[in-house]
Amino acid sequence: VTEERPLREGDEVADEGLGRLLALADGVFAIALTLLVIEIALPEGTSDARLGAALVALGPRYFAYVLSFAVIARFWIAHHRVFRYIRGYDDTLIWLNFLLLMLVAFLPFPTSVLGAHGNTPTGAAFYGAVLVSTSAASGAPLWYAAGRGRLLRPDVDRRLVRQSRISSLASTVYFTVTLPVALLAPYVAMGLWLLWFPMVRVLMTRLTRRG
Amino acid sequence: VTEERPLREGDEVADEGLGRLLALADGVFAIALTLLVIEIALPEGTSDARLGAALVALGPRYFAYVLSFAVIARFWIAHHRVFRYIRGYDDTLIWLNFLLLMLVAFLPFPTSVLGAHGNTPTGAAFYGAVLVSTSAASGAPLWYAAGRGRLLRPDVDRRLVRQSRISSLASTVYFTVTLPVALLAPYVAMGLWLLWFPMVRVLMTRLTRRG
Amino acid sequence: VTEERPLREGDEVADEGLGRLLALADGVFAIALTLLVIEIALPEGTSDARLGAALVALGPRYFAYVLSFAVIARFWIAHHRVFRYIRGYDDTLIWLNFLLLMLVAFLPFPTSVLGAHGNTPTGAAFYGAVLVSTSAASGAPLWYAAGRGRLLRPDVDRRLVRQSRISSLASTVYFTVTLPVALLAPYVAMGLWLLWFPMVRVLMTRLTRRG
Amino acid sequence: VTEERPLREGDEVADEGLGRLLALADGVFAIALTLLVIEIALPEGTSDARLGAALVALGPRYFAYVLSFAVIARFWIAHHRVFRYIRGYDDTLIWLNFLLLMLVAFLPFPTSVLGAHGNTPTGAAFYGAVLVSTSAASGAPLWYAAGRGRLLRPDVDRRLVRQSRISSLASTVYFTVTLPVALLAPYVAMGLWLLWFPMVRVLMTRLTRRG
Repeated sequence: VTEERPLREGDEVADEGLGRLLALADGVFAIALTLLVIEIALPEGTSDARLGAALVALGPRYFAYVLSFAVIARFWIAHHRVFRYIRGYDDTLIWLNFLLLMLVAFLPFPTSVLGAHGNTPTGAAFYGAVLVSTSAASGAPLWYAAGRGRLLRPDVDRRLVRQSRISSLASTVYFTVTLPVALLAPYVAMGLWLLWFPMVRVLMTRLTRRG
Repeated sequence: VTEERPLREGDEVADEGLGRLLALADGVFAIALTLLVIEIALPEGTSDARLGAALVALGPRYFAYVLSFAVIARFWIAHHRVFRYIRGYDDTLIWLNFLLLMLVAFLPFPTSVLGAHGNTPTGAAFYGAVLVSTSAASGAPLWYAAGRGRLLRPDVDRRLVRQSRISSLASTVYFTVTLPVALLAPYVAMGLWLLWFPMVRVLMTRLTRRG
Repeated sequence: VTEERPLREGDEVADEGLGRLLALADGVFAIALTLLVIEIALPEGTSDARLGAALVALGPRYFAYVLSFAVIARFWIAHHRVFRYIRGYDDTLIWLNFLLLMLVAFLPFPTSVLGAHGNTPTGAAFYGAVLVSTSAASGAPLWYAAGRGRLLRPDVDRRLVRQSRISSLASTVYFTVTLPVALLAPYVAMGLWLLWFPMVRVLMTRLTRRG
Repeated sequence: VTEERPLREGDEVADEGLGRLLALADGVFAIALTLLVIEIALPEGTSDARLGAALVALGPRYFAYVLSFAVIARFWIAHHRVFRYIRGYDDTLIWLNFLLLMLVAFLPFPTSVLGAHGNTPTGAAFYGAVLVSTSAASGAPLWYAAGRGRLLRPDVDRRLVRQSRISSLASTVYFTVTLPVALLAPYVAMGLWLLWFPMVRVLMTRLTRRG
């Protein structure tokens, strides 16, 4: 698995594949997805009579739940794709992967901020800033593996790699652009974040078509 | 793994099976099951003397815990069965799977509502509405894979597929019927939800017998 | 994998092993282990000056944490061993497995009760009652698989199966005996629960020696 | 897998590898990593106007989050490496592994103490004491497997084993030295804990070079 690059000191040989690294990553993604619901709770002491109104009042929290669930799902899909191009790992790749997981596992907190204060510039910008960081960290493993790390599978289709790199770069730029929008018009920023999902899809299709 | 359908642009080739997709799904199911217990807690400041009474007063929460645990287990069993019929995945299947996981991961919240306000029409109907949605989402991957997605294994027994599709459709209709019941008589609806488990079993047996 | 028994209607053929069943079980065990720590928290508003005293006052909660962690670990070891004797599964085995997982996932709650009210007969007996139930449920899959279910591997050493069955039965009886003790002397019951770990070990060794 | 040592009574034969043991361990590591975020929350009743200040005031909690995330990641990397040298397991190794997991799963609590009271000698020393214990427990499986347990793979490079043992011993000594520092100057201790990461890396490289 390491034909292309001489082993450096301190490296962990990927002699049994990336199995446990991916198992740990899948675990963190799954738990981050599932912990999002913890932020949704009725106010303490909600009476039976006020239940309906209280459930309706949680609207912004449902929105934040759905948005963050889809965001984490999207980053998982990207992680899934990227690690199919990679043939092994070294210390740097492991830590880049942990950096991404640290931001993914952090997302339940900005989600709760967005659910409680999404109408404020501060709340929306805080969420947006975490999106920018997570998006950048999501792209880092492939940039490293395709670049200095030389950890790509020899048989991988270079166009697919290029497509993934452009897509992650474009997402990071896109989220960065939404930051000033969030400060001026929080709800517009939320709309732009939702728009990200179809846009990634269109971008990927275009890139595939052009080869 | 993709003999039956030409690969579309944007598809992820299932060249290494559905392994990570199922690992992520199993993680979300396992965490949703285990998070249910978080809703069970003694009221703050319960004294030693009042402990027995406080444990008994949690009765509705134990019921909600057992019901939701069994519900999630049942959806996991269906997921387990359905994905044994499927030979690969595309973007649509991935997102249908995430839609199901989003509803499964949401269940701890309606469970806590049922545990605290199950005696009210609003509380019971809210829980029932999430059951309807989850049941519909549980059936979606197979409907898609067997239909437009053409993602079934070529060697799969079509009677088993038909049986699973009918079963998921019947469950969704059944839960929809319990919704007005929940609004009129919450406790009757809870009884009907418990009845669902033996009914699915009988239905599956009948369908198998008829072939 | 199903040479010994004709397939019944409604069965799920174990054609791809028990993989996902065990993955789900491992997930629930891992999360139950890790959720135990949530019950350990400083009282709200603990001042810097009172921190030392507050950390010491959590003593009973540390004890409950360690006890429950070891208890869940022990049940996982038993689960691990039992499922190595089993060659497939049917609906009954799946639901017996979920019954065990439901009790394992419930353990964080009695643990918090023990941590907060372990000095009371009610608190200790509640914890003990959950131990009895979990122990009985832990033994059920093997009793079923070795009996009516006829799901044992054909090549399994019957002495090992007998040893596991006796061990799980003995544990259930032992925990049942501790119940009245918990009602009279909670701290003695806690000591007996700790004694369980070396006793299981001695019992297993004796049973192995006798063959 | 057990050529080197006669099987003892009570042993579990590692006939199907360490798969489930590692799956459980990965689950506990992943959940411990993800639960760290639960300690980060806005004070109840934070107004929109005070949101910015409240997010800034959580600074020490972000620091504790990042530190503990990296600490758990580091222990996972060590676990990952160590278990690649091991060919099977017996009861002792299983329980040493659970001891490590018990401390890893405990880390969210000292992390919350550090986040809320990191400026106090007590808070910092409490965190440091858990680091010492976890580090010692992290080294135990390899010391046992390479020593009395005789559970190493026959083909493993003994220099790598020696390197891992020295590294875990050095980490434990290092964290022990930071304990009195934490009591005198909490912030210096935090700096020393951060220094641990590059130091482990340098140590591993040196040891590799010397062979």
